[in-house]
Amino acid sequence: MNFRSDNEVGAHTRIIEAVARAFACGPAPSYGADDWTHRVEHRLRDLFEKPDLVAFPVATGTAANVLSLACCTPSWGAIYCHPQAHIAVDEANAPEFFTSGAKLCLIDGPAGKIDPKRLAKALAQPVYGVVHHPQPAAVSITQATECGTVYAPEEVAALASSTHRHGLKLHMDGARFANALSFVGCAPAELSWKAGVDVLSLGATKNGALAAEAVVFFDAGLAREFEFRRKRGGHLLSKMRLLSAQLDAYLADGLWLDNAHHANAMARRLVAGLTALKGTQLLYPVDANEIFLVLPAHMHDELQAAGAQYHPWPSDRPGERAFRLVTAFDTDPKDVDRFLSIAKAA
Amino acid sequence: MNFRSDNEVGAHTRIIEAVARAFACGPAPSYGADDWTHRVEHRLRDLFEKPDLVAFPVATGTAANVLSLACCTPSWGAIYCHPQAHIAVDEANAPEFFTSGAKLCLIDGPAGKIDPKRLAKALAQPVYGVVHHPQPAAVSITQATECGTVYAPEEVAALASSTHRHGLKLHMDGARFANALSFVGCAPAELSWKAGVDVLSLGATKNGALAAEAVVFFDAGLAREFEFRRKRGGHLLSKMRLLSAQLDAYLADGLWLDNAHHANAMARRLVAGLTALKGTQLLYPVDANEIFLVLPAHMHDELQAAGAQYHPWPSDRPGERAFRLVTAFDTDPKDVDRFLSIAKAA
Amino acid sequence: MNFRSDNEVGAHTRIIEAVARAFACGPAPSYGADDWTHRVEHRLRDLFEKPDLVAFPVATGTAANVLSLACCTPSWGAIYCHPQAHIAVDEANAPEFFTSGAKLCLIDGPAGKIDPKRLAKALAQPVYGVVHHPQPAAVSITQATECGTVYAPEEVAALASSTHRHGLKLHMDGARFANALSFVGCAPAELSWKAGVDVLSLGATKNGALAAEAVVFFDAGLAREFEFRRKRGGHLLSKMRLLSAQLDAYLADGLWLDNAHHANAMARRLVAGLTALKGTQLLYPVDANEIFLVLPAHMHDELQAAGAQYHPWPSDRPGERAFRLVTAFDTDPKDVDRFLSIAKAA
Amino acid sequence: MNFRSDNEVGAHTRIIEAVARAFACGPAPSYGADDWTHRVEHRLRDLFEKPDLVAFPVATGTAANVLSLACCTPSWGAIYCHPQAHIAVDEANAPEFFTSGAKLCLIDGPAGKIDPKRLAKALAQPVYGVVHHPQPAAVSITQATECGTVYAPEEVAALASSTHRHGLKLHMDGARFANALSFVGCAPAELSWKAGVDVLSLGATKNGALAAEAVVFFDAGLAREFEFRRKRGGHLLSKMRLLSAQLDAYLADGLWLDNAHHANAMARRLVAGLTALKGTQLLYPVDANEIFLVLPAHMHDELQAAGAQYHPWPSDRPGERAFRLVTAFDTDPKDVDRFLSIAKAA
Repeated sequence: MNFRSDNEVGAHTRIIEAVARAFACGPAPSYGADDWTHRVEHRLRDLFEKPDLVAFPVATGTAANVLSLACCTPSWGAIYCHPQAHIAVDEANAPEFFTSGAKLCLIDGPAGKIDPKRLAKALAQPVYGVVHHPQPAAVSITQATECGTVYAPEEVAALASSTHRHGLKLHMDGARFANALSFVGCAPAELSWKAGVDVLSLGATKNGALAAEAVVFFDAGLAREFEFRRKRGGHLLSKMRLLSAQLDAYLADGLWLDNAHHANAMARRLVAGLTALKGTQLLYPVDANEIFLVLPAHMHDELQAAGAQYHPWPSDRPGERAFRLVTAFDTDPKDVDRFLSIAKAA
Repeated sequence: MNFRSDNEVGAHTRIIEAVARAFACGPAPSYGADDWTHRVEHRLRDLFEKPDLVAFPVATGTAANVLSLACCTPSWGAIYCHPQAHIAVDEANAPEFFTSGAKLCLIDGPAGKIDPKRLAKALAQPVYGVVHHPQPAAVSITQATECGTVYAPEEVAALASSTHRHGLKLHMDGARFANALSFVGCAPAELSWKAGVDVLSLGATKNGALAAEAVVFFDAGLAREFEFRRKRGGHLLSKMRLLSAQLDAYLADGLWLDNAHHANAMARRLVAGLTALKGTQLLYPVDANEIFLVLPAHMHDELQAAGAQYHPWPSDRPGERAFRLVTAFDTDPKDVDRFLSIAKAA
Repeated sequence: MNFRSDNEVGAHTRIIEAVARAFACGPAPSYGADDWTHRVEHRLRDLFEKPDLVAFPVATGTAANVLSLACCTPSWGAIYCHPQAHIAVDEANAPEFFTSGAKLCLIDGPAGKIDPKRLAKALAQPVYGVVHHPQPAAVSITQATECGTVYAPEEVAALASSTHRHGLKLHMDGARFANALSFVGCAPAELSWKAGVDVLSLGATKNGALAAEAVVFFDAGLAREFEFRRKRGGHLLSKMRLLSAQLDAYLADGLWLDNAHHANAMARRLVAGLTALKGTQLLYPVDANEIFLVLPAHMHDELQAAGAQYHPWPSDRPGERAFRLVTAFDTDPKDVDRFLSIAKAA
Repeated sequence: MNFRSDNEVGAHTRIIEAVARAFACGPAPSYGADDWTHRVEHRLRDLFEKPDLVAFPVATGTAANVLSLACCTPSWGAIYCHPQAHIAVDEANAPEFFTSGAKLCLIDGPAGKIDPKRLAKALAQPVYGVVHHPQPAAVSITQATECGTVYAPEEVAALASSTHRHGLKLHMDGARFANALSFVGCAPAELSWKAGVDVLSLGATKNGALAAEAVVFFDAGLAREFEFRRKRGGHLLSKMRLLSAQLDAYLADGLWLDNAHHANAMARRLVAGLTALKGTQLLYPVDANEIFLVLPAHMHDELQAAGAQYHPWPSDRPGERAFRLVTAFDTDPKDVDRFLSIAKAA
């Protein structure tokens, strides 16, 4: 009953095997000139229906986010994001580091989503071209959000509209993009470039890979500096096939979506069971594979005693104890049911 | 007959299997709190006979070099290295980036090794504490060097002596440390901290791993900022076991040295055969697994025609054509012999 | 009737003459080894009753702020400041640049002052030592604030208490420190180090100098890196006497306070007259030399027609027009009276 | 008899008076929107016969150099300069800081001048577009050089030719540009943009100003980011007239050249006298206002005893003692003659 994080689970067998095969087959060109890497880019072009996109594998979500953001802003620029965004609170100033000092400006909104009115107001300030003020350069949204919610395509489009009206670029931190896509049920293009996303950090690590993310530039012109930035950041693997073989298997035969469907389904199953119990309360709608909720003290105690694992989560209301549960591509339905029966008994 | 680079080969079966096993076994603590990572540190403590060393896995050699160097210098510092050092010519200013602007000062010397007299002279300049001048902070040497030569322990010690006399730290880029160790035939400690090395980038990628290096701080105090720097650099893998499982298998049962012994032996076999032929000429002694040599035009043509692969290399003498051949942990002796017989025939 | 900014006025005669004298007297040691620079440090030690403070002249307020903050935080650190702080909105990411990427975290509060409860809550978050999160490193307050209000010594002490409890440093942006001091009427020490300030950007430019600020470290240990940072920032003047002669005259014979007394008195005179008129409304208390207020449309029009100069200011309430008026060391009481008589007539 | 440095002398009366007048005349627009700043740009356009140049005042030579270089290179770029260049040895890594990590590559040559053949060879390396290697971006030359020599217009043009052939920009550190111009005797345009210089750091501080340099972009497009970089560097003075009034007076009525003529003449007078004496030996030709020479021990002792001031200088030959003498705009011929008579007597 491990619901601690989709970062703690193993990897999908097909991805593990793909890596093993890639390294058992002898020499291959280094630094991304290999077949796996080319294939990943072609798969993405097909899946996203965008023949001119360019894509680059990296090993971590932080690298994907900050290397792509660095292509969107000068050092004196401003990047707008939600106060709970991973880039704002969980990346130890990596965005500031890779942009050589751009500023993150926080735009709040309910349930982890940027409020489009607040964004529009912030972007309407008369700071453009004035040397004293950070220059608005990019908006970054997380999909699914850090609250487990998902922006609908029209919500993305609304933010993109403000963003582009002022000449900024729209970045999407898609560490859980597959989970969001599974929830919305639309085509990848609908939730990304057709809604106005300029560059996407497409996660795989949390959804069945060992460690692999793809930076997907829908605007190839924006990628001009990417390869220099990746190398300079120490993020260019000599045996790039390690990352590309993972992504290749991840995107093949719908594995990425199958994994996300399963994780989301397990979250729904947990939610359905838990919200039927007295004293529980969701902090946010559960759109993807993360559940934030209040558990009664005795229920929490019983679950802990039975070996269930999940993280406490800060709650604003005094006396209330909130928690985060995360499901994954490999969550066992039996674990979910056992968890629920313990909770019910409590 | 691929002698292009030890970056282009596959990975050793035992390392591939270790990765596969690590990801097939379900959940594990993230961000390096897992068993594999602990085990790697303990293996290094044993192998290097240094119970208080601290070690951190990263995915690339550039990351290992620049994150460790950043712990050795302020932004206004100077790092002394050979003009051919990887950090100087092959890392796209990553050292300057991760140190927030430290300067690389080049100290030449024959066959890829820093000349100890030139280093001593450079470090004796009256610049310490003077705000106008970059402050000497670290010396970085490569082992084996970019010319395929190896510093003997006493050569390292001589450079360490100058380095420490002036309060600088000694960094060793050990992308091919195992190959160097195999050549010298001493204990790992003798070629590192006992010779004065403060921090070592210990390579595995070029010697049979998929992508893994360990930063080894012999002086644990120097590592104080490392984990913040690694995270901020986007180099902290959530599923750290990907790197640690590789290093664990690499260091187990002498695999790292077996691989290096083989690569070096294959290089010696090539050299023995080639230098017996008329018109060939070594640019540098072949201590490790890289061979830099002049080949007569017709010999080169025949080899190419037969499908042999290796890189041209810049030569200072006009009209002369030089090349680099690299052997690896998996170089097939039959390939070596076939290469030699073609060369001989030519 | 120029009330646009204390940045637009000239300089005090005694400061101009001091500069002229300093440059007419022939050679002097360069880079701050001159008598004027030493004298400034001694004057500050006397005035602040702190014999072990160290002080450094720089030419701009931005340089003073960001060079001193860079001594207080690692690159992965967080600096807490008010959303209206000059360092947050008016310095084009200079703080991020000079700290190599530290993050500014905004703590709101009424009338330009950080709310001590919000600060305490922010600093109590369990992020210390956790590599994912920016590490709390410094708090920066502005005195007088960007709203023209002044922190009382006990207000500074309350913020200092939270700051120091968590091991952070307290920086004060004192671009208008003399104006604040004039308002409070206490000793300089009471409003700075005795209230917990670790480092002060002491402004002179807005209060009668040509261009000069002093960075005053009450904690000399904190200054260890300052001179390297100043040089590396291009802020070390070879003919340092240009800055020091200004500061020397500024601090001599109470000129700094006389200038501030006058500017504040002129602001009070304006406020007294304007608030007696119907339709005007102050946005904030006027503690120092800046007035933020609503003017009725016809009054504003008449004033403009008569040549009065002042800036519009953003107002939160629709339909309302707010403005900023700034007085200075050389504001002519006749200009104030003329302004008031026009306003009254309108 | 102070020949220590042109950084230690005072300022020319006309420049001092211009500053005093500028600050006695009441309010003026801030941040460079004032008349003095406009006038300086127009003077430069006239003097350099380039109506579309753009120019920006800054307070230090380091700021002028590094802010302009930052407009010429990406962070992964390489800047080529002489090993003795001020930017390489005397600016505490300010170039690396302001470029966010560009690399300085040293190209040697006799008497402080870059050898055009070595530069051509370095720029011909096949590194363009290859992500591993720093990307050649700019060449920086010093005029007059750190050895007191002067590049002739055709020497500048030869370096510019290599520079531009490969798409790099040519920067000139003209801390002593007036002295160089005085030596060559040509029009300012001939020694700058007509010879291929793209951006010039035009010094005034060492030649009679208090602290003022102008960054002159002959290619206005290159200046696009300059104002953001200057502000972000803390180098935008609110009362910009402090710098502009100096430059205005400096460029008016030929003062800049008169000052340089005098300084150079005094150097020639010293050289003529000294080289006639036995045991003296020039290290380099004396083109401008700096003399590097060997003095016999007894002569040096007598001069010191008589109160002459000048700096020792490193000499490559053991046992030999070399020194630097610098003349300035205000060097008194009587001091020169007294110095020579003491030397002669010794």
